[in-house]
Amino acid sequence: MKLVQNILNSRSDNDGNFFLALKKILGFTPKDLDTYRKAFTHRSANKKDSKGNPLNYERLEFLGDTMLSTIISYHLFKEVPSGDEGYLTKMRSKVVSREHLNELGKDLNLIAHIDSKISKDSFGENVHGNLFEALLGAIYLDRGYKYCEKFVGRRVIEPYVDIERLEGKIISYKSYVIEWCQKEKRTFRYEVYEDSGNEAIKHFSVKLFIDGKVVSKGRATSKKKAEEQASKRAYYAFQDKMQ
Amino acid sequence: MKLVQNILNSRSDNDGNFFLALKKILGFTPKDLDTYRKAFTHRSANKKDSKGNPLNYERLEFLGDTMLSTIISYHLFKEVPSGDEGYLTKMRSKVVSREHLNELGKDLNLIAHIDSKISKDSFGENVHGNLFEALLGAIYLDRGYKYCEKFVGRRVIEPYVDIERLEGKIISYKSYVIEWCQKEKRTFRYEVYEDSGNEAIKHFSVKLFIDGKVVSKGRATSKKKAEEQASKRAYYAFQDKMQ
Repeated sequence: MKLVQNILNSRSDNDGNFFLALKKILGFTPKDLDTYRKAFTHRSANKKDSKGNPLNYERLEFLGDTMLSTIISYHLFKEVPSGDEGYLTKMRSKVVSREHLNELGKDLNLIAHIDSKISKDSFGENVHGNLFEALLGAIYLDRGYKYCEKFVGRRVIEPYVDIERLEGKIISYKSYVIEWCQKEKRTFRYEVYEDSGNEAIKHFSVKLFIDGKVVSKGRATSKKKAEEQASKRAYYAFQDKMQ
Repeated sequence: MKLVQNILNSRSDNDGNFFLALKKILGFTPKDLDTYRKAFTHRSANKKDSKGNPLNYERLEFLGDTMLSTIISYHLFKEVPSGDEGYLTKMRSKVVSREHLNELGKDLNLIAHIDSKISKDSFGENVHGNLFEALLGAIYLDRGYKYCEKFVGRRVIEPYVDIERLEGKIISYKSYVIEWCQKEKRTFRYEVYEDSGNEAIKHFSVKLFIDGKVVSKGRATSKKKAEEQASKRAYYAFQDKMQ
């Protein structure tokens, strides 16, 4: 807390806000704010460093892209001991797909912090994924490989990397749960409420009731995702029964 | 030394030899020999682990490939602050080319330790690069990211990753040195001798004399490479004069 206070005192209000927003996104304390600023600087801002090199997030994207790929590779390697090289390569490409990267960037609302001369509305979809990759590159420079691993674990692997879904065995946990309840003649309901907490990004919380009892909870940036998370947890909790 | 002795005592002679050979290749002490054994096991050996999964180096190759790519990416990112994403991607692909990987594996004579049902002569060129990648994957599992970085630094970056050559500005340092000597009317000679040291792999040492004085030395697995290394060192030592 003292460190936070020092940083807040020694910097402008704007820096203080950026620091706090960043800390929430990262889940740990950033040290070198300039590196993270670069991760949010679009080429349209036309900035240069002291040596005249362009200062924007494109080089960090290059770095973050390869870090993500390596961390996901190791996760898949570890989780699927029976998967051969071809399988691992296919699964990895699903996780690091452009579409998925864009989703990750959107989830964290990274575009809110972009420094650009272009209006936020006129960016295409890919800006979200690019910002996500650049942020990961900045984490590597600021705190090293272990912190990258932690961040990817919390923001990518825990919420999204699910072997059964990647393999196409389960498309939606929610439909799985519903079908199972209907087959087993059990009642179910999802109770959702909006819950922004003290975070910059709006969140939804959901409770899943089966036969009137709460069996699991979920929390995410959309109603659909929160329901899916609660369903996934119910699936794992009742795995023996549901299969 | 005590650790080495313990390991040697507790294992068969064959394991002891493998351990010593590995230690020379790695430049540090391996801990989990079984992981490295896997890195040298070809699919033709038809081995299985205790759960019935195929036991060979193909999954480790997947892991090593991505580790190498990430480590080289960071090196290029750091060394060329003016290089944009496209430049960095192009330079990386030169370093991690199939041809180059094969050269790296051959340099370390990794094939000498392969466990396979196929005779060593009937393997194609790619086995060398595959073994190199698998070894890197095993290093990651055994000792983590930092050790991978050290190994790649010593075996790939230090001897081979040279920005000027990657950019095609200098094809051969030896020709550069020779041309410069002729232009400047200086005498030069390379003195090469074979020097196996106590290493499993034959090495060549070379001294480069200009005007009768030793200006640099090189040491590598071929005469040509040792001369090139000495020339490169002379180039950097005399950079102001040679350009």
